[in-house]
Order: sequence, then structure tokens, then C-alpha cells
Amino acid sequence: MQQFSFHSPVKAFFGFNAIDNLKTLLAPYKTVCVVCGATSAEKTGFRKYMDEYFKDKDIHWFNRIEENPSINTILKGGKFARECKAEIVIGFGGGSPLDASKAIAAFATNNKGFYELLTEEKLEHAPLPVICIPSTCGTGSEMNNYSIVTDTEKLDKLNFAKENTFPKYAVIDPVFLRSLNRKTIYATAFDALTHCIEGFVSVRSNPFSDSHAVTGMEIILATFAAGADTSKDETLLNFLYGSTLGGVVILHTATTVLHALGYYLTNEKKIHHGTANAILLPYYLEMMRESGVQKCQVVDALLEKYGFDISRWQDALGYDVSIRDVLTEDELENMVDYALTKKNSEWSPFEPKREFLLEVLRRY
Amino acid sequence: MQQFSFHSPVKAFFGFNAIDNLKTLLAPYKTVCVVCGATSAEKTGFRKYMDEYFKDKDIHWFNRIEENPSINTILKGGKFARECKAEIVIGFGGGSPLDASKAIAAFATNNKGFYELLTEEKLEHAPLPVICIPSTCGTGSEMNNYSIVTDTEKLDKLNFAKENTFPKYAVIDPVFLRSLNRKTIYATAFDALTHCIEGFVSVRSNPFSDSHAVTGMEIILATFAAGADTSKDETLLNFLYGSTLGGVVILHTATTVLHALGYYLTNEKKIHHGTANAILLPYYLEMMRESGVQKCQVVDALLEKYGFDISRWQDALGYDVSIRDVLTEDELENMVDYALTKKNSEWSPFEPKREFLLEVLRRY
Repeated sequence: MQQFSFHSPVKAFFGFNAIDNLKTLLAPYKTVCVVCGATSAEKTGFRKYMDEYFKDKDIHWFNRIEENPSINTILKGGKFARECKAEIVIGFGGGSPLDASKAIAAFATNNKGFYELLTEEKLEHAPLPVICIPSTCGTGSEMNNYSIVTDTEKLDKLNFAKENTFPKYAVIDPVFLRSLNRKTIYATAFDALTHCIEGFVSVRSNPFSDSHAVTGMEIILATFAAGADTSKDETLLNFLYGSTLGGVVILHTATTVLHALGYYLTNEKKIHHGTANAILLPYYLEMMRESGVQKCQVVDALLEKYGFDISRWQDALGYDVSIRDVLTEDELENMVDYALTKKNSEWSPFEPKREFLLEVLRRY
Repeated sequence: MQQFSFHSPVKAFFGFNAIDNLKTLLAPYKTVCVVCGATSAEKTGFRKYMDEYFKDKDIHWFNRIEENPSINTILKGGKFARECKAEIVIGFGGGSPLDASKAIAAFATNNKGFYELLTEEKLEHAPLPVICIPSTCGTGSEMNNYSIVTDTEKLDKLNFAKENTFPKYAVIDPVFLRSLNRKTIYATAFDALTHCIEGFVSVRSNPFSDSHAVTGMEIILATFAAGADTSKDETLLNFLYGSTLGGVVILHTATTVLHALGYYLTNEKKIHHGTANAILLPYYLEMMRESGVQKCQVVDALLEKYGFDISRWQDALGYDVSIRDVLTEDELENMVDYALTKKNSEWSPFEPKREFLLEVLRRY
């Protein structure tokens, strides 16, 4: 056992009706900035909930978070929160708005350029407190201080994360998943599954993160094994708990080369982040097996225990197992070259050599 | 799955040489108050370490924490930290000094009577930051906000715990366990084991605490199964990790009637807290089995998996399995009556009826 550090500082409220905790959590604040996408607050009923129970608050909606939020959006959001004098930020939605809410809370109190603040080791002013409320079951963003922001000019993804950009609270209520379609639920569940798998095998893994990674893999795989009927509350609840645990895992481990490769598919091919991970997972497992990654045996044992048929679920996502159907040879090389520039690749449990990655990715 | 909340806010540094993190953690502070027992800092080498590496700091030693610290000690410690203008408190030692350090950090900034501050819902002034460094493997106190204080007049134990009495950091280094004798290591390991067992079966348990409780039980039972050779670093490391996990568990679940009964043995018979739990564990298991507690089947399966022979380890602690050798009939009744006044009893996984408890405790 190597020396390691661990914590899970976000106070999380989990389960059906967890949203009712918001009444207590918001009590000390008057002016609230909600960060979300264009339509999810309406679709999920969150907007209605806020309107009904928080009539006495000044609620300002910054509902302009696009998928894979840009630097520009973050700066605009920071300005918005600053100008409406928000005392607290609520991030509501999938990974994009949750990630955005954490960065926006930092820019609200620190009126600076994006790269300027990104490169500062410590923020001059503490960010506004943040409450994250996920409406998908993939990101786990509510449990960590990460904020993935896209530089749309460089077509690059950057992680804005500081010691104090953790949400103060996470309110994790499966009720908001009921309006999602099956494909989105599966894609985000695959994202959560890869967080747990990559975190488990990562060179940064430790006994604390491993506990959560194993529990997370088990609950997600068991839910797929049970048929993953997305009309059932239990399915939503289980996927969501797996996702939350994945968020705790990657707080300790970050992700690995699988995620780095996946970013390229999202940036260049506009493939949903979770779907990108689902496409890449079989290749990643092959890479680990052939590199003799010991912990991959635990992952394989779990996949077998739950009879996990990746291609069945990839079909449900509308993708074939073959990456050659998605990318040309040139693009394949570009993807690998891009992935190798990302920090995540360093945490892989095998040496991610260019030729090795390409060789495995070219197989089918 | 019921609604539940979870977090593990203390940032922990774990493993051999984890102590070296202290150099970074103390960097922002000049004046330090160390809270510890009379001799442990010297015996373990902690005093020498501090003298060697922190010559530039003003270090004030409040080395007056007795086993089961009294209200009076806490108030004196608060005054001491206040008067030396400490910017940070280090708690070093077993459960007593760690618990004391958290309360002392609160009284340092809040100059009030014990019961006055105990009953305040929120502290007027934030406590000093606290770093907890355990030197035993039983308490897990470094991971939670609990502070068990003894009212020596009423012969009662009280829990001083507030929302912000968590240590900021825990530095958990098995090197400080090397000077402990075998009996103390076993007694504290039993304390950790009962934290995990009671937390697992508690009516307040949840999936997050269960993950840690199961891992904690496994690691402690596996270490006993391997012979628990206390001259081996691995034994110390494993017991210590189990203890740390137990601290995370009881942060969520508190303990149950076993601990409540054990307090009496400590208060009245001066039996070490961990040994008291070891004496009571077999009775507690019987109570659960007979009450049909479902989760006890998981505990029993683990005890069997690791061939855990409680009486062997009780022998090593110098106690027979029989509580009748320790208490008279009158005392037995007093113990049960006392336990039923404690909050812990309410979290038991069965109804702790007076006659039922007595009947089981009278059996042998």
C-alpha cells in the first residue's frame, strides 16, 4: 500500500425527494443564480419546483450552457452572476452545466481572463458557494471540483479545477432523470461506468477510490444485467448512484487515455461524450489485457459476473462496435496524437505508446 | 434505497511517511498548539519529529489529556490555546487527545462554559483549524467531528460535535503505532471493528457508509486471520486503515447499543474502551441473530470467511468472554439502564428492550 490521500468533501443528499433538502440549504441566501441548459429546467420540472417553493428568493436564470461549454460561455456566466449579485450558484443539468456552474462561481468573484485564472494556483477571492443538481447519470461532476471547458478556437478541452471549486452541496434526485430518453441514459451510464473502470485501473487509484470504483462498477453492471428498463425508477436510482460514486473516484484518480481519446470524438465528430466512451471501451479493455494490467482481471471478473455484453448496449446507443466506421485512418492518427497530449493519458495503467494504441484501434 | 446524505470532508494523508505532509500543511501557520497525552509524543518520536523539522514555529504543548478527557481538561485546553494565540491545533494520540483537540479548537475561539457551548446549535466563532494525527488504530476520530467528553461528576459521556468541528486534515502514519504494546493494538483494533460492525447494521447506515464498513471489516478481520503480528508494519498499516474507515462509517451512522453498554464498563470499571467493546461483541452478535437482523448475516459471513475466533483475541486482551466475571447482577442492570439513556441505543438494528438485553447478557 503506497501513501495516498483521500476525501469526499461535497455533502451529498441522495435519493428520491432529495430535492426537498434545497429548502434548508437555500435558507441562508436571498439571491440565487441558476446555471443550466436552454430547456432542461423546464423539461424536468426543476423550473416549476423552483417557482413554486422559492417565491421569496431572487432567482436569476443563466440558461445558456451549451453541450461542452466554451470559454466564452463561462466568462459570460461569471459576469451574469456578478452583475445580479448572486450569493449562491446552483448548477442544474448534465455534466456541461454542472461543470460550468463551478467555473462560473469562480469567475463571479474573480473578474479575470480565462487563461489568467486557469493558471493561477490559488484564487484571489473564494468562489460563490455552489449546489450541484444532476439531471443525468453520467458525470459525477457534483462530487468533484472539475470543470471541463472547451476552447472552441483550439478545439481543446481544459480542466478548470482549484482547491476550493468543490460544490458545497450536491442534491442528487433521480426524479429529474425521468424525462431523459433511453439513449441519453445509456450514454451517460457508460460515462459513469468508464469513470469507475478507468479510476480503478489508474496509476493514481488508491484503496479509498477503489472501494467506490468497485461499488460503482457493480451497481452499474447489475443494472444493465437487470435489463436497464429506463421506465423504472430503480434503474434511474441505481445508474445515478453509480455515477455519483464515479465522481468520487475520478476526484482521486482523474481518467486515463480512454477519456483522452473520447474527447477527440466529441470535439471532431460531435459524438456524445458518453457514447464516445462506450465506443472506445472494448478497445481499452483489449489494451489493458494485452499489457498485462493486473487490475483488469478484477474488471473482467465483474464484466463476466454480470454477463455484460458491450455490443448489445452499443447497439442501443446507435453505434457499431467498430471505430473504423466512425474515423478515417488520418483521423484515427489525429485522435491518438491528440490524446497523447492530454494529461489523462499519463494515468493509464499501461504505457500508451502511439503505435500500440493505433494497432489496437485499427483491429476492427 | 432510502434517501440519505454522505460526505467525508476531512482530507486524509495515509501511509508510511504520511507525516512528511505536515511540512506543507503547517506552512501557512506560525503558532501551533499540540494537544496530546502526557507521554505519547515522546514515546512515539512525534515530539522529536516536531522539534527537528519545525524549529521556526512557536509550538505550545498541551500534553495534559487523560484517558476519557474531562470537561475541565477541555476548558483548560481551550484557555491554553487561546492564551498562546494558536493559529492551528494539532491533536496527536489515541481517541482521547484527538477528540479533545477538536473540542479545544472550538473553546479556543469561543470562551464559554462547556454546557453552554454544547447546547448552542451553531458556534459563534469558527474553531481553529485542526490536524489530527492518530497514534492508535481504534478511534477513527481523525475522520469525523465527534468529541467524546466525560462529565466526571455525573459519570457520563457527552458528544461535543458541531457542523464545523471536523479536522481540516488527518495525517495517518503507522510509524507512530510501532511503540504500542500488543494489547493496546488489539483493544483499539476491536474498537475499530465494532465501529464498522455497528455502523453497518445501524438503522442510520446507507450505501456509502456500507462500502466503507464492509471494507473496514474485511481488512481488520483479514489482519487478525493473518495472525495479527504487531511487530509487522503491515499489521499496523492494515489495522490503521480499518480504523480510519470506521471513523468515516460512524460519522454517518454513529454507534449503537454495544458502544452505549461499553461506556459503562469504561466509566465504572476503568476497562479500556476497545476492550469493553471486545467483551460485549459476542453478546451483541447474539442479540442481532435472535432479533433476525438481516445485515447480521453479512457480518456472520465475514466472520466465518476469516475464521474469526473472538475468544482467542479476548484472551490476548486478558479478558474472559464472560461479562458475569466483570459485573455483579446489580451492576449488570445499572449498565443496561445507563445504556438505554444514551442516544446510540436508538440506532440499534433491533429494539433494545431492557429485559432482552439483560437476558442475553446473563447467559454466560
